[in-house]
Amino acid sequence: MLRNVSRPSNTIKVVASCIVRNFSVSNQNMASTIGFIGLGNMGNHMARNLLKKGYPLIVYDVNKEAVEGLKQAGANVAASPAEIAATTKKIVSMLPASQHVQAVYTGDKGVFSSLQKNSLLIDSSTIDPSVSQLMAEEAANLDSKFLDAPVSGGVNAARDAILTFMVGGPEAEFETAKEILSNMGKNVVHCGAVGTGQAAKICNNMLLAISMIGTSETMNLGMKLGLDPKLLAKILNMSSGRCWSSEIYNPVPGVLEGVPSSNSYKGGFGTALMTKDLGLAQNAATATKSPTPLGSLAHQLYRVMTNSGFAGKDFSSAFQFLQEQDK
Amino acid sequence: MLRNVSRPSNTIKVVASCIVRNFSVSNQNMASTIGFIGLGNMGNHMARNLLKKGYPLIVYDVNKEAVEGLKQAGANVAASPAEIAATTKKIVSMLPASQHVQAVYTGDKGVFSSLQKNSLLIDSSTIDPSVSQLMAEEAANLDSKFLDAPVSGGVNAARDAILTFMVGGPEAEFETAKEILSNMGKNVVHCGAVGTGQAAKICNNMLLAISMIGTSETMNLGMKLGLDPKLLAKILNMSSGRCWSSEIYNPVPGVLEGVPSSNSYKGGFGTALMTKDLGLAQNAATATKSPTPLGSLAHQLYRVMTNSGFAGKDFSSAFQFLQEQDK
Amino acid sequence: MLRNVSRPSNTIKVVASCIVRNFSVSNQNMASTIGFIGLGNMGNHMARNLLKKGYPLIVYDVNKEAVEGLKQAGANVAASPAEIAATTKKIVSMLPASQHVQAVYTGDKGVFSSLQKNSLLIDSSTIDPSVSQLMAEEAANLDSKFLDAPVSGGVNAARDAILTFMVGGPEAEFETAKEILSNMGKNVVHCGAVGTGQAAKICNNMLLAISMIGTSETMNLGMKLGLDPKLLAKILNMSSGRCWSSEIYNPVPGVLEGVPSSNSYKGGFGTALMTKDLGLAQNAATATKSPTPLGSLAHQLYRVMTNSGFAGKDFSSAFQFLQEQDK
Amino acid sequence: MLRNVSRPSNTIKVVASCIVRNFSVSNQNMASTIGFIGLGNMGNHMARNLLKKGYPLIVYDVNKEAVEGLKQAGANVAASPAEIAATTKKIVSMLPASQHVQAVYTGDKGVFSSLQKNSLLIDSSTIDPSVSQLMAEEAANLDSKFLDAPVSGGVNAARDAILTFMVGGPEAEFETAKEILSNMGKNVVHCGAVGTGQAAKICNNMLLAISMIGTSETMNLGMKLGLDPKLLAKILNMSSGRCWSSEIYNPVPGVLEGVPSSNSYKGGFGTALMTKDLGLAQNAATATKSPTPLGSLAHQLYRVMTNSGFAGKDFSSAFQFLQEQDK
Repeated sequence: MLRNVSRPSNTIKVVASCIVRNFSVSNQNMASTIGFIGLGNMGNHMARNLLKKGYPLIVYDVNKEAVEGLKQAGANVAASPAEIAATTKKIVSMLPASQHVQAVYTGDKGVFSSLQKNSLLIDSSTIDPSVSQLMAEEAANLDSKFLDAPVSGGVNAARDAILTFMVGGPEAEFETAKEILSNMGKNVVHCGAVGTGQAAKICNNMLLAISMIGTSETMNLGMKLGLDPKLLAKILNMSSGRCWSSEIYNPVPGVLEGVPSSNSYKGGFGTALMTKDLGLAQNAATATKSPTPLGSLAHQLYRVMTNSGFAGKDFSSAFQFLQEQDK
Repeated sequence: MLRNVSRPSNTIKVVASCIVRNFSVSNQNMASTIGFIGLGNMGNHMARNLLKKGYPLIVYDVNKEAVEGLKQAGANVAASPAEIAATTKKIVSMLPASQHVQAVYTGDKGVFSSLQKNSLLIDSSTIDPSVSQLMAEEAANLDSKFLDAPVSGGVNAARDAILTFMVGGPEAEFETAKEILSNMGKNVVHCGAVGTGQAAKICNNMLLAISMIGTSETMNLGMKLGLDPKLLAKILNMSSGRCWSSEIYNPVPGVLEGVPSSNSYKGGFGTALMTKDLGLAQNAATATKSPTPLGSLAHQLYRVMTNSGFAGKDFSSAFQFLQEQDK
Repeated sequence: MLRNVSRPSNTIKVVASCIVRNFSVSNQNMASTIGFIGLGNMGNHMARNLLKKGYPLIVYDVNKEAVEGLKQAGANVAASPAEIAATTKKIVSMLPASQHVQAVYTGDKGVFSSLQKNSLLIDSSTIDPSVSQLMAEEAANLDSKFLDAPVSGGVNAARDAILTFMVGGPEAEFETAKEILSNMGKNVVHCGAVGTGQAAKICNNMLLAISMIGTSETMNLGMKLGLDPKLLAKILNMSSGRCWSSEIYNPVPGVLEGVPSSNSYKGGFGTALMTKDLGLAQNAATATKSPTPLGSLAHQLYRVMTNSGFAGKDFSSAFQFLQEQDK
Repeated sequence: MLRNVSRPSNTIKVVASCIVRNFSVSNQNMASTIGFIGLGNMGNHMARNLLKKGYPLIVYDVNKEAVEGLKQAGANVAASPAEIAATTKKIVSMLPASQHVQAVYTGDKGVFSSLQKNSLLIDSSTIDPSVSQLMAEEAANLDSKFLDAPVSGGVNAARDAILTFMVGGPEAEFETAKEILSNMGKNVVHCGAVGTGQAAKICNNMLLAISMIGTSETMNLGMKLGLDPKLLAKILNMSSGRCWSSEIYNPVPGVLEGVPSSNSYKGGFGTALMTKDLGLAQNAATATKSPTPLGSLAHQLYRVMTNSGFAGKDFSSAFQFLQEQDK
């Protein structure tokens, strides 16, 4: 959910965002093969962007259809993560959750079962930072490097290669990873040691969830007190209550155009996915003994929403959940 | 919420005096006399700004020293709100809380006891919107208008005449009020019917409190997960977690210069004052049956902070409260 | 919601609960007329019980049908609260909320407009304690006494004259009130000064709401972790997690017989009514600057439930709300 | 939640020693030797109770002093968990947290490294139920059984052999376990499959935490509203607000004798330990997608208390935390 907002004064001067490479496809005979594991809604687009930029690919997914699609686009196909690791030393993975990452890397026929020395493993899944760290330790035991590189931006950003990658891992490997990742996104941010990419991602999404529910409560209260929603949004956005959720992604239908709230909360970032990320934030908070009272309550509210018919709606439907509902 | 309306034991001791001063009005051809009630930290500066702009003033406060200061600056002095109402038809008030507003307007020697027809009453106190509405009803019974016009901006903004006024009341009277208020602030926003100025104010501050605690939790969690606080703030501020509290008023010491967090949480907007505003928001939410789960929890957390030694610190000290404290 | 539970070691030895009066109806020529204002679901039964015990009654309600029913049962009818106050010095009221109490006592044709000296006013409504105190002050100005005496027990307890009254007011008047109230209930508890009856009621209901949601969460979590609900309830009830909600009123269908959860959450104490009481608790907490984080969140959750189709269901439907719902 | 399974950096330093002692078994015809791992505040008493009942013991702990004490009481001493597993087929463990259990069972020189077929492993630690399940799976692979059997009751209950054991595991092994455990406690409850003992424990403690904070809020609010605390406790305890925390362990100093609140919150169950258990509950809730809004907030409040100087005080000090504190 990390998005560039048009406030230039606050942006990081992020790596590689304006470097346009002048390589021709012919120069890319040199481009080494990249292994890509996980061809779902996001990974599918990401892998295709690597192909487009001329990288030879070898791919794996449990979903045969997804694999077939990439094969037709020019990718080679592996029968297991192990086969990928035996074939190339540069691997990108994009998987749904911690347990899938553990299975793909440490399972039978997993990446670690046939990993070559000096491999570079880049995991773009959003998972528990401590799992990222565990994978990195096991990779180190095999004389290789594992970096976490979760993304912000949704399916469209994956398709258009404008994702932002938040990367955790050593500086030297970050530079190599950046070369690969910049073919799939416009920003590649180095966050620190392994796990800090995940940390940045879940921190941002926790604050986003808090702000979104807070904005929903505030807009609903103000409307009940007689304020026009557009006027209230304007007042908040010129004041200290301003946040991304009030300004760019207002949850009240009709306040902004082109956002999910003005399209029956379709599209966008689903409530169930936000709930998953908030669960990761809570696990991390408990593990580090960090109090997060509002983050914890936001998690619980999105959990209840997920249980109450909002799972597939955009997370800005918190506004709808809090309003009086006709039933 | 209107429970104290006629409760004599809560009234300000409005000291009686029947002397109507014969101050000269020769300089006042240009601007009509304005009555000003409430010369505290904020009101004192606001009244002086009116004087500077050439408005003749007649002032009242229970605090003799405050009154003396304004007298030396050129204001006339009234012995009661009633005397002010008998003298001028334009009155501004700036008082600490709902009960003071009720006492000043409805008490013995209060404004309503001697109000002239077609008076304009502008209350800049932050109070319960339903009290504003009640005062407006009583004013209407006396053929006058009462507008709520709470401010955002602190003592320095009052001094520098750069406050923002959020005004509730009829359009026609808003225009007259704007002429007066624009001498004390830079923005004068018309929010709608009477009470909506208060509504806008407490909505903004509720969202601000949520965002501030949320930012504090997020920054603390990220730091515990190994992120550098300045880097984390940058990432949030280019992302969807961005809010005024992360960007302009970051609660982590050292992330920004010139904010209370970098000055031992001195100055700024005190935790006890934020708690008061959140209490108003909760009363309004209960009265209108609006769910505000995060606003409610923010209120409770600031209440606990107020009880735990943070009352006088800036409200960004939520970060310090959540951190492990040495005791 | 105050109910006697069969734990004799913990009961208060409450006043008058086993005093059976031996007066014959003929002795009750002496019984002075009682005024009764508010003949709704509760008040209707309460008034009839006074009639049955031989008290002459004069009644008032805005609902003509309700008045007609009491008239046929033998009550005299007044055209206004004022007429009641002019007729008798003993008045009981049972009204929905604070604003109704204020209107009945302080309005035009209200009780105070024609109150006789040395009257005794007993209000059994559940309202804001500060409104009770305000009414008591105004009564004192008229040389009379106002006591708050909210009840626990629902419509059936009102019908069967087994309510519990929690009474706030001076000791001497409490004794007189007790004589009257014991005809409508089995327990009459003196809680302290005026307002403390309300305080006891809203404190109990706040803790009840917290325990009920807590029990619901706990039962749901345990079941998801593989525990049989009856076994889990048994373990809790022999342990430190035990509470009235787990033991006497378990929210999981099938764990106990004869409770609303085993009857599709019909009957019992409605979610909307609980939400109202929690709103009173929150107002009182804000007014006294008392932190109530869980009470506040319980309020918000019941508010959301009220908005989400649970308003008319028993408050133990919190369990159903938290479970995954098919929609 | 299983993230630390193979994380060497978190393991207990299980000091290796290959010496298998030749202790005599002549006294042990009556009862087979029991292995006991973990001789802390609780385990120390539990092990001594087994000795008193005539069971030969072989013990292990990283703490030399603790081991020496048991040795003098008659226990044999092992140099590693592995040595215990090689010596006996009945093992009880009592360890601080999930990672210690993992280290003791799966680490180098751990129990599983030398486990005999048909062993019975009883773990009385309070840990993540999913870790219990994982240990049971690994035990099953070695043709043995692992049961979770966490306790309720504190150090005194351990000393007096009146603990309650909540046991998860197959029925047949439960019966054998019960024979052993009943020497250390008065209740041994079979909760279901492996992990359900932990589930019952954390469910109870979550509801306990909610009730305790709820009682603290309620008592504080009632006192601020003018109620005498003993009277308020009596009213709650005859009413639907009643819970173990209000009745048996009231958090207000002076309401009950012999509880921590009447002894400056010394003794009892420490806030930091409660926080740990609530963290387990939150992990389990997240893993099972169970909403626990109050349980989650209770966790956060105890977390903040732990960070604010209350870590070592009894968990009923929530009352003190919420009150206005002099600082």
